[in-house]
Amino acid sequence: MKPIEVKREILRYVNGRAEEVEDSIVTEYPVTVKINGQEFVTMVCTPEYIEDMVIGFLASEGIIKKYDDIEKIWIQEREGFVHVTTTKINPYYRDFQSKRYITSCCGMSRQGFVFVNDALTAKKMEDIRVKVSIDDCFRLMNEMQQSADTFRHTGGVHNAALCDANGIVLSRMDIGRHNALDKIYGYCLKNDISIGDKIIVFSGRISSEILLKVAKIGCEVILSKSAPTELALQLAEQLGITTIGFIRNHSLNVYTCPKRIVNI
Amino acid sequence: MKPIEVKREILRYVNGRAEEVEDSIVTEYPVTVKINGQEFVTMVCTPEYIEDMVIGFLASEGIIKKYDDIEKIWIQEREGFVHVTTTKINPYYRDFQSKRYITSCCGMSRQGFVFVNDALTAKKMEDIRVKVSIDDCFRLMNEMQQSADTFRHTGGVHNAALCDANGIVLSRMDIGRHNALDKIYGYCLKNDISIGDKIIVFSGRISSEILLKVAKIGCEVILSKSAPTELALQLAEQLGITTIGFIRNHSLNVYTCPKRIVNI
Repeated sequence: MKPIEVKREILRYVNGRAEEVEDSIVTEYPVTVKINGQEFVTMVCTPEYIEDMVIGFLASEGIIKKYDDIEKIWIQEREGFVHVTTTKINPYYRDFQSKRYITSCCGMSRQGFVFVNDALTAKKMEDIRVKVSIDDCFRLMNEMQQSADTFRHTGGVHNAALCDANGIVLSRMDIGRHNALDKIYGYCLKNDISIGDKIIVFSGRISSEILLKVAKIGCEVILSKSAPTELALQLAEQLGITTIGFIRNHSLNVYTCPKRIVNI
Repeated sequence: MKPIEVKREILRYVNGRAEEVEDSIVTEYPVTVKINGQEFVTMVCTPEYIEDMVIGFLASEGIIKKYDDIEKIWIQEREGFVHVTTTKINPYYRDFQSKRYITSCCGMSRQGFVFVNDALTAKKMEDIRVKVSIDDCFRLMNEMQQSADTFRHTGGVHNAALCDANGIVLSRMDIGRHNALDKIYGYCLKNDISIGDKIIVFSGRISSEILLKVAKIGCEVILSKSAPTELALQLAEQLGITTIGFIRNHSLNVYTCPKRIVNI
């Protein structure tokens, strides 16, 4: 396997003094996905759990519907290719890929979707399958940050954790924010782990892309250390997702769907 | 113009007490670029300086060579389209777009490029046209952070500033890290402002994508508050770009090409 971080001699300057030190630097690895022999996409990622990432990506994009739709997946590591053959594939995916809604208002659908494909694959969360307390929010964010070793070494990656009330079920990191979520999704599909009854804890901002990824993987609640965007919050309201951000020390912001928060 | 931030009622929880407050949230705006009538790309961005961003993007991707290659550019704001007609266009851009190097080692060229197009548009910095002192690094980072109003309100955007020894020449922010650099590049092309004798100061991580963007716009030095990736540093060495990161309080890291730093 390729290393996820490497050592490098750098010049560190601290309080008026420069010295040569050895630093840890996070790696980036380009991976090109071929579906049934056709080049589909190139992703730049942290080189671990690549198979899971590709499975999660294909499912979240609606190209496959379930893990069994994949007949074979193999990684040509040195060259940076992942070859996927499928038994079934969404016949429309090429038509919808990157296809925008063309409407009279900012090119979005009435629900706030920009791309047709997103509207087809994002799940609407009608039920309340999971509840969180304010204490859960602080505790789970704290646990995720404690477990984030590579970030502490290098400062260069984002972390995502799938949690239940007892704590972290699965934790993944990546230089690409959405890749960390794809890695979680792919692992859960492969190992038949339910997501709808769990919580995503995330280190990065909640952009519309991240919110849509959460909806696509079928999760009702996202907790983040950082800020959301307005488009992400509009989508969260439409899709019924609880978004809680800026979880820092003893404060946090509840942006959408507070109905899943107990005792507030 | 669309607003770059909006007010929203949220539930803020601080030290055991919840209250409804009005918060500032950053916006996201999808923009689809059409070149000579053909749909080219959809960018999601902070809705200001959109014309500059599109000009900078087209130039940094090598689709146009100079500002004069654009005959007309107009923004269909409500619908989120930017229409560009060109007098000249790089005839090869469709062939090279997203085309990967296929080699025996991780799909990169010998110089570390993943995409053919990047290798063609990134400029190699052979000379030393700009020098910085350690004091400049702290001072310019500080100035950029002081000027970053929207980040202070919303926590949701990245900032980039083009600086000379006297301070900030131009400062731009965007929810997309590379968009902030495209906005700077586009403005400079339009107004004939030189970049090669200046410094980019950046709030985000130095990924390979950001490093390549700096090389494409023709800048020799990048200063960042955050961490670089190994692939970015390999490219910086190949391209002769000085990268300085983790500029915080009284410490910083010099990663590549220290020859442009005076008195260290």
